[in-house]
Amino acid sequence: MFRTNNCGELRLSNVGQRVTLAGWVQRARKMGGMTFVDIRDRYGITQLVFNQGVNAGLCDLANTLGREYVIQVVGEVAERSNKNANMETGDIEMLVLELTVLNESKTPPFTIEDNTDGGDDIRMKYRYLDLRRNTVRQNLELRHRMAFETRRYLDQLNFMEVETPILIGSTPEGARDFVVPSRMNPGEFYALPQSPQLFKQLLMVSGFDRYFQIAKCFRDEDLRADRQPEFTQIDCELSFVDQEDILEIFEGMVKHLFRFVKNIGFEDTFPRMTWEDAMKYYGSDKPDIRFGMKIVELKEAVSGHNFVVFDSVPYVGGICAAGCAGYTRKQLDELTDFVKRPQIGAKGLVYIRCEADGTFKSSVDKFYAPEDLKQIASTLNAQPGDLILILAGSKRKTQKALCELRLEIGARLGLRNKDVYAPLWVIDFPLFEYDEELGRYFAMHHPFTSPKLEDVPLLDTDPGLVRANAYDMVVNGVELGGGSIRIHNRDLQNRMFELLGFTPEKAEAQFGFLMSAFQYGAPPHGGLAFGLDRFVSLFAGLDSIRDCIAFPKNNSGRDVMMDAPSVLDQSQLDELNLIIDIKEK
Amino acid sequence: MFRTNNCGELRLSNVGQRVTLAGWVQRARKMGGMTFVDIRDRYGITQLVFNQGVNAGLCDLANTLGREYVIQVVGEVAERSNKNANMETGDIEMLVLELTVLNESKTPPFTIEDNTDGGDDIRMKYRYLDLRRNTVRQNLELRHRMAFETRRYLDQLNFMEVETPILIGSTPEGARDFVVPSRMNPGEFYALPQSPQLFKQLLMVSGFDRYFQIAKCFRDEDLRADRQPEFTQIDCELSFVDQEDILEIFEGMVKHLFRFVKNIGFEDTFPRMTWEDAMKYYGSDKPDIRFGMKIVELKEAVSGHNFVVFDSVPYVGGICAAGCAGYTRKQLDELTDFVKRPQIGAKGLVYIRCEADGTFKSSVDKFYAPEDLKQIASTLNAQPGDLILILAGSKRKTQKALCELRLEIGARLGLRNKDVYAPLWVIDFPLFEYDEELGRYFAMHHPFTSPKLEDVPLLDTDPGLVRANAYDMVVNGVELGGGSIRIHNRDLQNRMFELLGFTPEKAEAQFGFLMSAFQYGAPPHGGLAFGLDRFVSLFAGLDSIRDCIAFPKNNSGRDVMMDAPSVLDQSQLDELNLIIDIKEK
Repeated sequence: MFRTNNCGELRLSNVGQRVTLAGWVQRARKMGGMTFVDIRDRYGITQLVFNQGVNAGLCDLANTLGREYVIQVVGEVAERSNKNANMETGDIEMLVLELTVLNESKTPPFTIEDNTDGGDDIRMKYRYLDLRRNTVRQNLELRHRMAFETRRYLDQLNFMEVETPILIGSTPEGARDFVVPSRMNPGEFYALPQSPQLFKQLLMVSGFDRYFQIAKCFRDEDLRADRQPEFTQIDCELSFVDQEDILEIFEGMVKHLFRFVKNIGFEDTFPRMTWEDAMKYYGSDKPDIRFGMKIVELKEAVSGHNFVVFDSVPYVGGICAAGCAGYTRKQLDELTDFVKRPQIGAKGLVYIRCEADGTFKSSVDKFYAPEDLKQIASTLNAQPGDLILILAGSKRKTQKALCELRLEIGARLGLRNKDVYAPLWVIDFPLFEYDEELGRYFAMHHPFTSPKLEDVPLLDTDPGLVRANAYDMVVNGVELGGGSIRIHNRDLQNRMFELLGFTPEKAEAQFGFLMSAFQYGAPPHGGLAFGLDRFVSLFAGLDSIRDCIAFPKNNSGRDVMMDAPSVLDQSQLDELNLIIDIKEK
Repeated sequence: MFRTNNCGELRLSNVGQRVTLAGWVQRARKMGGMTFVDIRDRYGITQLVFNQGVNAGLCDLANTLGREYVIQVVGEVAERSNKNANMETGDIEMLVLELTVLNESKTPPFTIEDNTDGGDDIRMKYRYLDLRRNTVRQNLELRHRMAFETRRYLDQLNFMEVETPILIGSTPEGARDFVVPSRMNPGEFYALPQSPQLFKQLLMVSGFDRYFQIAKCFRDEDLRADRQPEFTQIDCELSFVDQEDILEIFEGMVKHLFRFVKNIGFEDTFPRMTWEDAMKYYGSDKPDIRFGMKIVELKEAVSGHNFVVFDSVPYVGGICAAGCAGYTRKQLDELTDFVKRPQIGAKGLVYIRCEADGTFKSSVDKFYAPEDLKQIASTLNAQPGDLILILAGSKRKTQKALCELRLEIGARLGLRNKDVYAPLWVIDFPLFEYDEELGRYFAMHHPFTSPKLEDVPLLDTDPGLVRANAYDMVVNGVELGGGSIRIHNRDLQNRMFELLGFTPEKAEAQFGFLMSAFQYGAPPHGGLAFGLDRFVSLFAGLDSIRDCIAFPKNNSGRDVMMDAPSVLDQSQLDELNLIIDIKEK
């Protein structure tokens, strides 16, 4: 060992001990005849003291140390006269007796501090230096802790972690597969799994009863801020359970993580909300319930006043921003611009100020008498001093716009505190989504999702109303995970395929080996998957999952540190029987 | 929940309780007016009883149950009159009151028994049914337990599990990379990692101090019985340590696994053997030390007797097979054939029988007088009744052949009991291997492996003698893992590259970003990796790693269940800018 202690653990109780530390030079400063060096490792920082009067040679050597030099020091722990309450080791310092430079360092391209001077691009190129920063490393420590506690919880409940293969066959799920040419099977390709879905269902057929895996998954998608080509799921599946069992076990897992990782206890059962209510009151299937400000349907309340904008649309909805009646013209214009952005796409924004004196001032005074406005305000339960914001249009699109507006107002009002966690189960998702363009139904989750048994008769009459035994775990407006009870009954599965427009041949081609497996005694089963990257980001209070991944890729799917992907040697291409043929765009 | 209990937990203490079970029909048999059904799940088997006299309808239904039907039963636990000591639930049975068929099953293509009637091919095709067999599932349970206990041990010692990427840049290590065409970066490819080696060294540069990962690795090699295109490593790296620290920590890990998974305690420190001794006494860098029968060098003892075979070769060595003097001509011929197989390649086998009466009988009586044979026997410490077997040729090749012969005799003598575990550290590996054909040195581990400091002067004079700070963990002749202390000193690294024939440009091209990283304060570090598949196989007593992998591939790299790899749609190839061009062979 190059050290007797790490750089974060010495305390007053160690005073007088002779110890050896090893680590990186965080900073060095000369003050009179003294040189102070902060030595850093993963565990903390300790102040080293060199005294020109005591050992001039050693002090001179200390004065040559540059930032990020790797050093080893032997010395005696002493109490500091000038204690630093902001440092865990701030009560002590080390009077250095021996100094060895283990390795020198070039001056790093940015400072290794919590608030660095390095921009995104340079930090990604030198990711190994960025990872030296406490804030970044702590995200990875959190990730380790969460993965470990997840395993500990599930292991206690008899879940077995089973590694499913990474080199699999291409299966047509939602997104594009990454593929891998096979040298031994010329002209053929493996695919990388988008999820272990098929394998975990097979493991249920195998009687594994309770499976989990913290699994790498791959999707060749055009990337957004919160997407990576490879990502990690906590993937789970259970047999002989119904939806209630699954919610209970995984609510337990989420609570376990909150307790053992964040030290936050949740006494009560997590609230549950139907998908229908989530859309109605929050305009989203992943409501942020840290605050109220529910959406109120106003079509009835606002109709019949010759205001063609409201009269001509199928849906009018509003929210009440408490205490915001004082919003200036400029602020209201900002909000109007916000909802008119192409991503949201509202045509305009109607407001009603509920003034403190009980009067109303709105952008539609022409059409609505004070009495009408009072009526609308009462529908929204608005109080004097509140601001009512109203959008109109098609139902789903307007609900979605109201959701965004609500989140924006919530943020402005400081109601979205990252240290407050509001978990929620969203349940009773519809089984199908209707695609207007293609004129047919699609499975909202996947074709193996079970309808609620009481809704099965609706399959024949009104498939759009059939609810699924499907559920999502939502925290603070972030979908952390979701899953469903699967169909294990062959007749019901065939009926589903029929409704989804699969011929028996097509179902066989796409899901052949799973369908075969289901003939040999498939048990009732269900499961879910959590996005580990998102889960860690939520716990870390991060805006992007990239910051909780050790070596992430950028928005073009590139690792700029390794400079990957890259071109291959011709001999490699030859061995794989491939020719590259880049088409003109 | 579909059950109140699982099929493995009911005992006499449950007698009289009303319980619900769910599982698979293992077998059903009719005896007079009774029908007995064994119901099975992951946890065990319970006997169900249906009585024609008590409930004829229910008994009739039970008589329709086929093998592997999925059923749910409600009933009362009763004490068995005919107890079965071979079953954990053998003291009780369930008197069934209700029976629900949850799912039917086609007759499976082979029996779901510990000793199945299914051949390899059919079991791989229906792997999901093969996994239902206790013996196979237990291997996977063992794998889960070992991975979990590995994590628990390392977590306690402050190791952080960090996920390194699967889509990386192609780096020229030993074997071929699997590659992944990038759609977003036309003409470029990712590679799948052969190991996280570069990343774990980067994490040390990042100050992560103690890293581990149970990591999927990929090698596009022609497959042998114990190789898979994807395999799993327990990958570890530590900073500020020397070799002794690493041996101690990971000896602790192996002992932890033996204790908590196999319930075997190792009190003593594991033996250590230099690579030189391992080759000398066992002809292998992974000696099976469950038994002695060391190789003895005989060149001196056998020379000068006009036996040209021995006189003309650089090396003669022998082993003493205790108590085997009685081997018949046929047995000796078998052994001769064994060593002459092309994989071993010896030219012949010389034997000396040490008869019980103190005389000697050998295949070289023409050249050696009884006194000479006695001398040779004494060199080998052979006793009356023993059999001496001697091979001659070039040193390394003959040592290797003697190793194989020793293992064969050990097996015949029952000295290789799978329930006996003999762990061993092999240390002091040579830093370089000399390639006679290419006339140059290669790194035995990899170019970052550190020489022993005391051997550094030999780098200039006799590189072949330089020993590395490299080590392997060997159990029962199986290399479970290995690693090394890495070079962190830039000058020494450059000297290594020079010796290995790398120009600075070539070193930069191959290891560029790691070399860059090393300029910014690389700490002293080292690590190792264990093969999880082999580790599990060892604990499970398996001959092939395939049996401890849930969904393995065959020797052509195919998953016969999924039928992967497979051809892609033309549109997928177009998107990836690829044309397939299979050359005639």
